Amino acid sequence: MTYTVAQIAKSLGAEAAGDTSLVIRRAAEPQSAGADDLALAMDPKYAEGLSQGAARAAMLWPGADWQAMGLTAAIFPERPRFAMSGMTRLMDKGQGFGTGIHPSAIIDPTAVLGKDVSVGPLAIISAGAQIGDGSVIGPHCFIGMDVTLGANAYLREQVSIGARVTIGMRCIIQPGARIGGDGFSFVTAEPSTVESARKTLGDQGAAAAQPWIRIHSLGSVTIGDDVEIGMGCTIDCGTIRDTTIGNNTKLDNQVHMGHNVSIGDNCLICGQVGIAGSARIGNNVVMAGQVGVNDNIFVGDGVIAGGGTKLMSNVPAGRTMLGYPATQMDKQVDLYKAQRRLPRLLREVAELRKVVFKSDKDD
Amino acid sequence: MTYTVAQIAKSLGAEAAGDTSLVIRRAAEPQSAGADDLALAMDPKYAEGLSQGAARAAMLWPGADWQAMGLTAAIFPERPRFAMSGMTRLMDKGQGFGTGIHPSAIIDPTAVLGKDVSVGPLAIISAGAQIGDGSVIGPHCFIGMDVTLGANAYLREQVSIGARVTIGMRCIIQPGARIGGDGFSFVTAEPSTVESARKTLGDQGAAAAQPWIRIHSLGSVTIGDDVEIGMGCTIDCGTIRDTTIGNNTKLDNQVHMGHNVSIGDNCLICGQVGIAGSARIGNNVVMAGQVGVNDNIFVGDGVIAGGGTKLMSNVPAGRTMLGYPATQMDKQVDLYKAQRRLPRLLREVAELRKVVFKSDKDD
Amino acid sequence: MTYTVAQIAKSLGAEAAGDTSLVIRRAAEPQSAGADDLALAMDPKYAEGLSQGAARAAMLWPGADWQAMGLTAAIFPERPRFAMSGMTRLMDKGQGFGTGIHPSAIIDPTAVLGKDVSVGPLAIISAGAQIGDGSVIGPHCFIGMDVTLGANAYLREQVSIGARVTIGMRCIIQPGARIGGDGFSFVTAEPSTVESARKTLGDQGAAAAQPWIRIHSLGSVTIGDDVEIGMGCTIDCGTIRDTTIGNNTKLDNQVHMGHNVSIGDNCLICGQVGIAGSARIGNNVVMAGQVGVNDNIFVGDGVIAGGGTKLMSNVPAGRTMLGYPATQMDKQVDLYKAQRRLPRLLREVAELRKVVFKSDKDD
Repeated sequence: MTYTVAQIAKSLGAEAAGDTSLVIRRAAEPQSAGADDLALAMDPKYAEGLSQGAARAAMLWPGADWQAMGLTAAIFPERPRFAMSGMTRLMDKGQGFGTGIHPSAIIDPTAVLGKDVSVGPLAIISAGAQIGDGSVIGPHCFIGMDVTLGANAYLREQVSIGARVTIGMRCIIQPGARIGGDGFSFVTAEPSTVESARKTLGDQGAAAAQPWIRIHSLGSVTIGDDVEIGMGCTIDCGTIRDTTIGNNTKLDNQVHMGHNVSIGDNCLICGQVGIAGSARIGNNVVMAGQVGVNDNIFVGDGVIAGGGTKLMSNVPAGRTMLGYPATQMDKQVDLYKAQRRLPRLLREVAELRKVVFKSDKDD
Repeated sequence: MTYTVAQIAKSLGAEAAGDTSLVIRRAAEPQSAGADDLALAMDPKYAEGLSQGAARAAMLWPGADWQAMGLTAAIFPERPRFAMSGMTRLMDKGQGFGTGIHPSAIIDPTAVLGKDVSVGPLAIISAGAQIGDGSVIGPHCFIGMDVTLGANAYLREQVSIGARVTIGMRCIIQPGARIGGDGFSFVTAEPSTVESARKTLGDQGAAAAQPWIRIHSLGSVTIGDDVEIGMGCTIDCGTIRDTTIGNNTKLDNQVHMGHNVSIGDNCLICGQVGIAGSARIGNNVVMAGQVGVNDNIFVGDGVIAGGGTKLMSNVPAGRTMLGYPATQMDKQVDLYKAQRRLPRLLREVAELRKVVFKSDKDD
Repeated sequence: MTYTVAQIAKSLGAEAAGDTSLVIRRAAEPQSAGADDLALAMDPKYAEGLSQGAARAAMLWPGADWQAMGLTAAIFPERPRFAMSGMTRLMDKGQGFGTGIHPSAIIDPTAVLGKDVSVGPLAIISAGAQIGDGSVIGPHCFIGMDVTLGANAYLREQVSIGARVTIGMRCIIQPGARIGGDGFSFVTAEPSTVESARKTLGDQGAAAAQPWIRIHSLGSVTIGDDVEIGMGCTIDCGTIRDTTIGNNTKLDNQVHMGHNVSIGDNCLICGQVGIAGSARIGNNVVMAGQVGVNDNIFVGDGVIAGGGTKLMSNVPAGRTMLGYPATQMDKQVDLYKAQRRLPRLLREVAELRKVVFKSDKDD
């Protein structure tokens, strides 16, 4: 799988210069690029790396003097970071999953597979499942009863999808993602200490032991088109209606979505984010790693939450949030700065008190 | 699987009114309920939803005027949230796992399976394992050597249980949960920087490289009756004795329990909670999402910890905690409020100093 | 698998006393030890436990009077915690995985297996994979295309390793660990609100919807010798170069490593730590549970981060850090103490203002 510089440039809609017939074997960082590699140097800071490596062709920043750098050919993408998308799609060697149905796969006779579906070794497809055209079901995957997968789904190895889950077209699901577990919803016969603590915020004293009784999930999970689910994600079923994810939303690894959560379109949810039951997330929301979202709250469109932010209450659309508890990011940064001055502030107030009140108490 | 209104009411021990012979196909939210659905409207705020939907029967709040709402039949549960438990159990369609032993399952001849055990496709049951009567071992599950599972265990797909783990009756284990990994316990030949940092809290300077040597886990994991383990949970073996979970304790998804941890009865541990090695958790403890528990500490009976709380030291019984580091919840909320006034406080003290000390220094 | 007291002592390089021909069946905690157990009582605080149990032999603290405690034999290790390593390795009963290639395993004919490799039931080894001598591939494992595993790898059940991952010798990988997912790297056609929020820290207002386009991972993952990966870990591929882990580094359960991350040698990364894309971690670094590391930052050699710490910016070598945002641990502890005095401080400043400014405003 090799491409000429001209082919790569064309696929990116980018300008090319020099001997564009040069054949490229792979992409590489400038300093470690070999003679058949395309060096990725879309910022002037990579110029030095280029001189250390052996690349003859490079993807460069606008206006770079490729000839002075001794290159044979160069590609000039308009928006370099965006060009990475097309270039890496072109050069991706993939996982090498086979085509067709592996003889060791176990497929229920009532499952309906579209055209050109491939099913990996030891995968299981349960009764009533429907798999869209061109989908890839990886090795060791489990597809539950009455699951619907849209066209061109791509499931890596050891993914599991529970009964009645519906996923749109072109989903990508990374290894070991879990969709459709039962929601974490329990109730006690009498009102529990948790219900009471939510009201009082105070200690609950000696709690009488009460067994937790399961509320089963009758809903399932509905996921839109062009969604990605990362490794080790866990997405619970809804209690009555489905838990939902909109179109083009991307989940990184180890994201947890509780029962009844709804996430809108076009969100970016980074690693280890946890979204508690019944929270509603708007469109175009970005959550950095380890963000937490309280149960039953609403997070508006376009909200951005920095790493580790804990959203404890509703967040209006358009806010940029940080911290625990979450505050608008600029205020939080001011607060952090103020906190660092707190030990000195304590001393200053003690001094003031001494002077003003003639206090000589040791504090 | 349909029920009449009378059957549902009877199973919940609830009053019913109207034409209780009406046949119900499924439960639904009021606004989206169809003519054969039971609308769930146990709070007056759902009245409007009811009028938007097409339900003829509903589960209602006490005293609701079902006839005025145009309903044909109604159910009046005593404690509505608790009624959800019985109703959802009744209406749950389940995962459709087959009965009996799937021919593709691999079961060691020395494993002992009770009556009416079902084993899913491509599951593995190792030597010496004992599976209690009526248990369901899901597709792709792995049951290790000498594992004991009590009666009526229900394991979803792709669960793995390591050697010598013991689990009581009626456990429910969600997809991809991991029980019985080796504990994370390492030692260096000479005292390490961690041992020294724990004493001094200060920087450790240039650390000599020392390889970490594994301390193997000789213990396993012992889990009581009526326990649930969520998707992607990871529960480590104990070093010498077993890691333990008491009866009726429920773990949400992605909970991590280190080696030697003990959790009591009747606890509720929410998503992404991490409990470090050798921590001891009492009975009736509730931890919200993303709580962290330090190693070797003790958390007393009935403690409640809010979302994201990091318990860094022992917590007496009955406390309601919040924050990082954890503080009693009401004090923590006061502290959060005070913190927001900190930038203004800094200005005020600067003003005071100017007046009192005639200081004109810019701060 | 039994050993005499003499054999155990010899394997630890420790002194033994008394009837060292006594045969030991297993290790146990002092209070629950039986007559054939070796009680582990390496600290005087365990003396009372010893008297409650029935052990005839014990591993004891230096100078303990074993005869006065009624023991028949005793072992005196030089560094007790280190002795745990040798003792537990000796007494570990393991998982009982079989030897040889299980007939249900699916191994591509182009895969190359070394001498004495064992492959568990229903494991899959893909085309071009190379498995070093003496390696154990557990049940239900998936080894991707062109993966290289060094000698004496030990993979527990249901581990998955994606295409082109390279792992050194003697790795230990716990159940359900995921190596080699695609990185979480997306780009929008036009600059996104995230790019702009990073610059301004402020709210981004109404964001125009822009679809996220994947940047594929062309790199893979390279892992050194003597590395351990915990249950449920997720390690992403690099974008151009490989994501890397050095020699002798240990990852606890549910650790997340984003694309392009590099971790040095000899690090200890505890449960649920998340390391965002392109972060670089030095050697001998220790991160306690639930630590978060921002993307693209550098964490120097020998850094120690306490539980829940969020490292938001570069950390020089040798630092001991705590908190969110991370600060040097001793300063952070001072800060926590000062914070607890904040509500009182607010009252004191209000008093001062009243006196100094004759202010009678209620605040």
